[in-house]
Amino acid sequence: MVGGLKVILVKAGHEQEFERLFGELRETMREREPGCLLYALLRSQTNSRSYIVQEQYRDQASLDAHETSEHGKIYFPKIRAVLESITVEYFDVVIS
Amino acid sequence: MVGGLKVILVKAGHEQEFERLFGELRETMREREPGCLLYALLRSQTNSRSYIVQEQYRDQASLDAHETSEHGKIYFPKIRAVLESITVEYFDVVIS
Repeated sequence: MVGGLKVILVKAGHEQEFERLFGELRETMREREPGCLLYALLRSQTNSRSYIVQEQYRDQASLDAHETSEHGKIYFPKIRAVLESITVEYFDVVIS
Repeated sequence: MVGGLKVILVKAGHEQEFERLFGELRETMREREPGCLLYALLRSQTNSRSYIVQEQYRDQASLDAHETSEHGKIYFPKIRAVLESITVEYFDVVIS
């Protein structure tokens, strides 16, 4: 299993748009990405523009499918357009 | 729902012991902490001493129960003893 952590800062004033877009992407993923086991959005309790994304995929192929998906081609650019910064790291899941 | 992120660096040579202790804690939690929805251990792909923990709790009371649990009193000190560093942050879960 592969896990991921995104650390995100949203442009000021775009928080609701970001959460809406993320929600639409997540719903589409539930239908089309059976290999994605976790794709959760968490908001900082101290900075309302700061978020993390917790991810888990059944295997590398499922992560590859996510990154090359048709719905990703639509949503990733829209989401990136409202971000001030993003860092992404992938991990091996030891205990899920 | 409340989410959490721990960023952990394990003392050199203690990685297996850490993973064993974490696994034992996690199994105990599955039995005794119904409010804990996610408590996953992920290992960095570039530094074998570097880990993150992805957490989600049904509510603040479930997180409080975790932090004050009897099994925590046993395992938290044992785990901390093999850590070089740990940071902990809690979040509001927007999309689980």
